[in-house]
Amino acid sequence: MAYSPSHIELPVTTGPLPSSRKVHRPGVLHPEIRVAMREIDLEPTSGEPPLPVYDSSGPYSDPAVHINISSGLQRIRQSWIEGRGDVEAYDGRQIKPEDNGLTRFSKRETTPFPTPNMRPLRAKSDAVTQIAYARRGIITPEMEYVAIRENLGRTAMHEAARRDGESFGASIPDFVTPEFVRDEVARGRAIIPANINHPELEPMAIGRNFLVKINANIGNSAVASSIAEEVDKMVWATRWGADTVMDLSTGKNIHDTREWIIRNSPVPIGTVPIYQALEKVGGIAEDLSWDIFRDTLIEQAEQGVDYFTIHAGVRLPYIPMTAKRVTGIVSRGGSIMAKWCLSHHRESFLYEHFDDICDIMRAYDVSFSLGDGLRPGSIADANDEAQFAELYTLGELTKRAWARDCQVMIEGPGHVPMHKIQVNMTKQLEACGEAPFYTLGPLTTDIAPGYDHITSGIGAAMIGWFGCAMLCYVTPKEHLGLPDRDDVKVGVITYKLAAHAADLAKGHPAAQLRDDALSRARFEFRWRDQFHLSLDPETALKYHDATLPAEGAKTAHFCSMCGPKFCSMKITQEVRNFASKQNQEATAFIAAAVPDAEIGMADMSARFREAGGELYIPAPPAKSG
Amino acid sequence: MAYSPSHIELPVTTGPLPSSRKVHRPGVLHPEIRVAMREIDLEPTSGEPPLPVYDSSGPYSDPAVHINISSGLQRIRQSWIEGRGDVEAYDGRQIKPEDNGLTRFSKRETTPFPTPNMRPLRAKSDAVTQIAYARRGIITPEMEYVAIRENLGRTAMHEAARRDGESFGASIPDFVTPEFVRDEVARGRAIIPANINHPELEPMAIGRNFLVKINANIGNSAVASSIAEEVDKMVWATRWGADTVMDLSTGKNIHDTREWIIRNSPVPIGTVPIYQALEKVGGIAEDLSWDIFRDTLIEQAEQGVDYFTIHAGVRLPYIPMTAKRVTGIVSRGGSIMAKWCLSHHRESFLYEHFDDICDIMRAYDVSFSLGDGLRPGSIADANDEAQFAELYTLGELTKRAWARDCQVMIEGPGHVPMHKIQVNMTKQLEACGEAPFYTLGPLTTDIAPGYDHITSGIGAAMIGWFGCAMLCYVTPKEHLGLPDRDDVKVGVITYKLAAHAADLAKGHPAAQLRDDALSRARFEFRWRDQFHLSLDPETALKYHDATLPAEGAKTAHFCSMCGPKFCSMKITQEVRNFASKQNQEATAFIAAAVPDAEIGMADMSARFREAGGELYIPAPPAKSG
Repeated sequence: MAYSPSHIELPVTTGPLPSSRKVHRPGVLHPEIRVAMREIDLEPTSGEPPLPVYDSSGPYSDPAVHINISSGLQRIRQSWIEGRGDVEAYDGRQIKPEDNGLTRFSKRETTPFPTPNMRPLRAKSDAVTQIAYARRGIITPEMEYVAIRENLGRTAMHEAARRDGESFGASIPDFVTPEFVRDEVARGRAIIPANINHPELEPMAIGRNFLVKINANIGNSAVASSIAEEVDKMVWATRWGADTVMDLSTGKNIHDTREWIIRNSPVPIGTVPIYQALEKVGGIAEDLSWDIFRDTLIEQAEQGVDYFTIHAGVRLPYIPMTAKRVTGIVSRGGSIMAKWCLSHHRESFLYEHFDDICDIMRAYDVSFSLGDGLRPGSIADANDEAQFAELYTLGELTKRAWARDCQVMIEGPGHVPMHKIQVNMTKQLEACGEAPFYTLGPLTTDIAPGYDHITSGIGAAMIGWFGCAMLCYVTPKEHLGLPDRDDVKVGVITYKLAAHAADLAKGHPAAQLRDDALSRARFEFRWRDQFHLSLDPETALKYHDATLPAEGAKTAHFCSMCGPKFCSMKITQEVRNFASKQNQEATAFIAAAVPDAEIGMADMSARFREAGGELYIPAPPAKSG
Repeated sequence: MAYSPSHIELPVTTGPLPSSRKVHRPGVLHPEIRVAMREIDLEPTSGEPPLPVYDSSGPYSDPAVHINISSGLQRIRQSWIEGRGDVEAYDGRQIKPEDNGLTRFSKRETTPFPTPNMRPLRAKSDAVTQIAYARRGIITPEMEYVAIRENLGRTAMHEAARRDGESFGASIPDFVTPEFVRDEVARGRAIIPANINHPELEPMAIGRNFLVKINANIGNSAVASSIAEEVDKMVWATRWGADTVMDLSTGKNIHDTREWIIRNSPVPIGTVPIYQALEKVGGIAEDLSWDIFRDTLIEQAEQGVDYFTIHAGVRLPYIPMTAKRVTGIVSRGGSIMAKWCLSHHRESFLYEHFDDICDIMRAYDVSFSLGDGLRPGSIADANDEAQFAELYTLGELTKRAWARDCQVMIEGPGHVPMHKIQVNMTKQLEACGEAPFYTLGPLTTDIAPGYDHITSGIGAAMIGWFGCAMLCYVTPKEHLGLPDRDDVKVGVITYKLAAHAADLAKGHPAAQLRDDALSRARFEFRWRDQFHLSLDPETALKYHDATLPAEGAKTAHFCSMCGPKFCSMKITQEVRNFASKQNQEATAFIAAAVPDAEIGMADMSARFREAGGELYIPAPPAKSG
């Protein structure tokens, strides 16, 4: 981990994770694509091959790439997009002072992104969305990229690890082909969020039949934070595994902050456009209008935002359903729209203009993230009438968006006790025709502020298992304050492990390879391999060194929990050594171990002692197979 | 939080948690008992009553009690035990140098507990166990203590909160009576670990129909740690919610360390006696014998250990079943017994002497914790033949122990992916006749060392929901090093929230009261109440202050996430104020909100604005109902 000095005001973390290399796999249908992955090298004496793992960190972890965040990442998708021949560059919307929360006469407070924007692209006529291509039978480079990525380095089906999960009706294949990806996107069961104006991103998929993904939220707020911190948080979050990042900035400098983030982001960026629209009307919800909202959508679509949270399901008749809740409406977007609806006593303009919104989304391939503005803010309010009324409206809107070739996912709660989680998933699948579900946690209890990454990590792992496609992280600061770098990392790692636990339980064919590699390393006292295979090698090493800092302890055949005299793993290894050394006798020995056959026990006992049946034998050579 | 200077070498944390008071509820059947609870006082302006919560912290959090750990806690159960007239004091076993891991000629390295031991008690003839009394229809003071404690301050059934959980066949009552406790103990569905030589403890129950409990492990090891640290960890762990503590010390000074811990512990203490027995034979597993083990059981029973982990299910024929595992045998006790069995090629002496062990347990009321010596040490090994073979033997042993009036719980895994957790619970219930289950996690993935409190907290919450009665905590240092104070706290809080999430999901009738109180505080911007109601008020306050340190921010009607202009909770409050102010109009308003009835909307809109429909209205008075 090193801070790049490329831009003094905006240091970001670069360099590979320990013992890791960036590798690129070429496409077959599209030989020009280079799918980025990470390979973890293990100790040469272990005899273990490098372990390929999914890599969301982009070029920042590739020492071969010179990072200069003032010019942004390489536009890897530019030629793919232009090669399709269905987009046109045009003179985009002019940036206005109010885009950054300024008045006409105030000065811009932030440095605009220094590399001049290219002219934005938009569709010439038809939708330029991945679902539109998929439905026409086209396998895009984005789809092949996703297919290679999802196989976790496997190049053929027979390399699958054992799979014995329970997937609750999902259709997870043994091996992901580009055609499978196309089909999932065409059915609306997966999305590839990839705005044509965000050519820097490395394509990824969100869907129940793929690896469970996680999102990290960043964003300045009126109270604290700066552009520099937010860009760094984006790079930092993706380094540890964030598959997408939402920029939830409010207050001033929203436009400039977002530009810096998108130009430097290897992952899809999501936003909640109503936040910026509200800033443009001075924070007065009732002054919002379709024109201001529409203008904001275009502004952000031209910048390259990959998915928009749109709270179009907060309909006027549902608002009174929240009046008796313990915590009312807790979604910011939901409460803004509720206030607008009540104030004007009119149906939501988002709902009424939904088809117009679709027309914008399809022209840039911005995916919908249909927001759950009425999600519960406490255990007490979980699964109530308001929540499910909105969900069924989101299902209606999903079908309308699909009819216009838009990609759609659905946002979900929130705060839900464990016994009420699964019904959220089953209702969502039913209401929304298997469009991907994207939940915030859910938190399984309200009594642990400061630990809500954990209260929600429990719910996230469970709903991921049940079929949720993406989990929005929660940091330890949730409900209390703004996350700093450490909080972002803890949130991301917590959600990565929750998503991985879900992949295992769903029976993803290759998920367990990493667990097994780490368990073998653990059993064989390959401490460094154990650190390198973990989600957070730095913390694992630090915790180990807190008890046994000596370098020699990293090759010691014992650990701090038991000390050298008393290690269960060491004893097991002795048992196993004995069994393999004695070979033929071992067969008899196992037979003899059945208590009915008590013959030859004294003899076996003597042989066990001969074979090294004591606690201080020299360390066995690492790894036999 | 303050360090008591009562003994310079052994500081422990004393004093109440913020805004909390110790209260004592008297018994009815046994008026002499004083059941300790904590009441959390909320802001006077809130109109909310104090919230009573379960309190495992003992007298340390009671400012009225003078703590002197050199003399130990008050022996509150002494008169209850002696009053039953079925025990006798006798000259206990002499302490030998090898009890502390010393040779005959080496000097004791640690300070023996300075207050001379009372002569130990044992049964005159019949079992003096809670199950023996329960079966004879006797409601002991311990049982009434538990009943009052389990009701969380409710004094009658009608105070129950709503309950809508899924308990998977448990029989959780609306209100816990002393007779219910007696019946559960008599059936073996719950235990009250309470050695007659540990009169200092405040009785608690472990059973599927009670609140889910958690255990914290402490213990010195050969590599690090001291008596002082271990006593402090015990006090510290119970302060944050540990319901029992296991002393897993190995190496030297085991006897003295344990004496200090027991004499100062308000919660049941568990041990794994084979650890100390192994020390007595110099760490050579094959030199263990029944005589040495028996002597160790009596040594520890006389000290007052409340439950023993006994790995009597590791039978000779099961050991070869582990040979092909990825991580072999990872239980220390299991691997010691495996080594003994292989070396002698004999059936386990624990299994063969099980009835003799029962005779010791029933004479002191030491509860069995039947150890899972063959639990899986990795996802790959979960739910295998060896694990379940042992489980069914534990079921057989449970019935033998019950036949001798011994209390029994069953230990369980370990490392289990989510989809394989529930079958562990159902098989345990079936095999062990509903004896309480006590699991370590389980960890739901192996890839996150440094975060195994979370990988296991997920599994713990789930198995607690499915019916597991006690969850053994895992700290962030698991697999890497020895936990320090901070790790112990994080482990305990993580497991408290997991246990509480399980109580909510099972439908415990009063569990949600705390969630709801905290959610109301959150919604009404009572920041201090939110901190005080949380499991870890110190961390919640610290995280809040990291963003908004000003004292005024703790009464501000906004938070750092959105800032003053943009708060969804504030908007909801406005919606609600409007609804209540307008009263009759509100009814019409809700009717009008149905989009079909579009009359009067402009009028309603005007009234909303009149009623304060803007974002900067003065803060509403806190709490209306």
